[in-house]
Amino acid sequence: MTLTRTATEARLPVLEVFGPTIQGEGMMIGQKTMFVRTAGCDYRCAWCDSKFTWDGSERHLVRHLTPAEVLAEVCALGQDRFQHVTVSGGNPALIGEPMAEFIRLCHERELRVGLETQGSRWQDWFTEIDDLSISPKGPSSGMETDWDVLDDLVARLTSHGVHFSLKVVVFNAADLAFARAVFARYPHAEKYLQPGNEDVAAAGDISRRLLDKLAWLFEQVIADKAFNDVRVLPQLHALVWGNKRRK
Amino acid sequence: MTLTRTATEARLPVLEVFGPTIQGEGMMIGQKTMFVRTAGCDYRCAWCDSKFTWDGSERHLVRHLTPAEVLAEVCALGQDRFQHVTVSGGNPALIGEPMAEFIRLCHERELRVGLETQGSRWQDWFTEIDDLSISPKGPSSGMETDWDVLDDLVARLTSHGVHFSLKVVVFNAADLAFARAVFARYPHAEKYLQPGNEDVAAAGDISRRLLDKLAWLFEQVIADKAFNDVRVLPQLHALVWGNKRRK
Ligand code: SF4
Ligand code: SF4
Repeated sequence: MTLTRTATEARLPVLEVFGPTIQGEGMMIGQKTMFVRTAGCDYRCAWCDSKFTWDGSERHLVRHLTPAEVLAEVCALGQDRFQHVTVSGGNPALIGEPMAEFIRLCHERELRVGLETQGSRWQDWFTEIDDLSISPKGPSSGMETDWDVLDDLVARLTSHGVHFSLKVVVFNAADLAFARAVFARYPHAEKYLQPGNEDVAAAGDISRRLLDKLAWLFEQVIADKAFNDVRVLPQLHALVWGNKRRK
Repeated sequence: MTLTRTATEARLPVLEVFGPTIQGEGMMIGQKTMFVRTAGCDYRCAWCDSKFTWDGSERHLVRHLTPAEVLAEVCALGQDRFQHVTVSGGNPALIGEPMAEFIRLCHERELRVGLETQGSRWQDWFTEIDDLSISPKGPSSGMETDWDVLDDLVARLTSHGVHFSLKVVVFNAADLAFARAVFARYPHAEKYLQPGNEDVAAAGDISRRLLDKLAWLFEQVIADKAFNDVRVLPQLHALVWGNKRRK
């Protein structure tokens, strides 16, 4: 039935909407923002901190909403206390036209839109994102980067003048080598490194463990001329609130 | 004697040169950088974490160096492991032509230059700074902002297209009110809030105390629509290394 088909295609698979909160990581670190988390990912990272977006455990919580419905929910929750929206996943770049429409609606409301993806897939609406964080996954994730796709993606973002960055999460020396390769390949991109969280299920205060890992990463970066042009940032939300969800 | 006079005028009062390290705060948070700390300040903030730059306790350590000598020291220490230099104080905006020359020399070496000042005083070389952090001081500091000077400074930076930001350190509700006034007065500036460090002399690990203060500031910002466009950031160096000097 055409009506149903159209209705389904024009929807976003939304797992959670929360905020206002503080963006804890990456190029917009510290920014007050609302979050929209979409369901589904084409990767299966070993250390994924959002496995519930793709492992089936929360399939019953996924709602298929129209772009206007998502924005209405964001606005109902955020009231007048935000002007920035971050779209995260999973991989929100799996979504086509409904995401383009959501971004258009946000911009009509003069909201700024940030988005986080691993860079495995291009979407034409990337050019409309205000702050696009691309996070290729290193060896510790168990995933492999498709360099042709990433080359194409970075070239298009650059030619469109999109404000984007490359962020690599680092657990070990192999990830550092991967980061060196990524950054050498795209020397003109904004570059970020982030220490990995070794236990995304631990309860309570995990700040000292995370800060020790940050100290280690600081030392690696300080010692290595390949990282002269890099910014090293922790996950502030995990330092302040631990592994808590919707924070 | 003219020769001596000229030589003195062409020098910078330098208290310390250190790095490479990680910029712990503000608009360039996480950036690998060298630091040059100048001596002397026109303020006397109650909670100043660099009192040694102006209280006389380290007067014997101040060296009057030519711009070329400062750069030589930066390069000797940083070798090939940096491409960003941060000038801090004290208030480096007390220095005129020698600072302009130092910035020129840095740019000749293709180094990017960041600078931190409270905004009490204009310098023509502000327009040459790549990342200029202006940090007006709230009531808890005991200082008063000269709004005419700050208005003029922000207007000039804006008209020159300088990449600058306004950062307010927050200890209490009065500082939050001050931040609201600053940000409302300059709505188009990049805006940062930073929790104050209540004890800049404490030894050892102070991270939990600082993170609790950050959590408090997060909650204040989340609840207040005056701060929708603001970024809230801690001092990463203090989280990782405590109150240690030259880190
Ligand atoms: S790409 Fe992101 S959401 Fe997908 S599995 Fe990896 S970490 Fe998880
Ligand atoms: S302006 Fe900065 S250096 Fe000067 S007294 Fe205040 S905190 Fe210290």
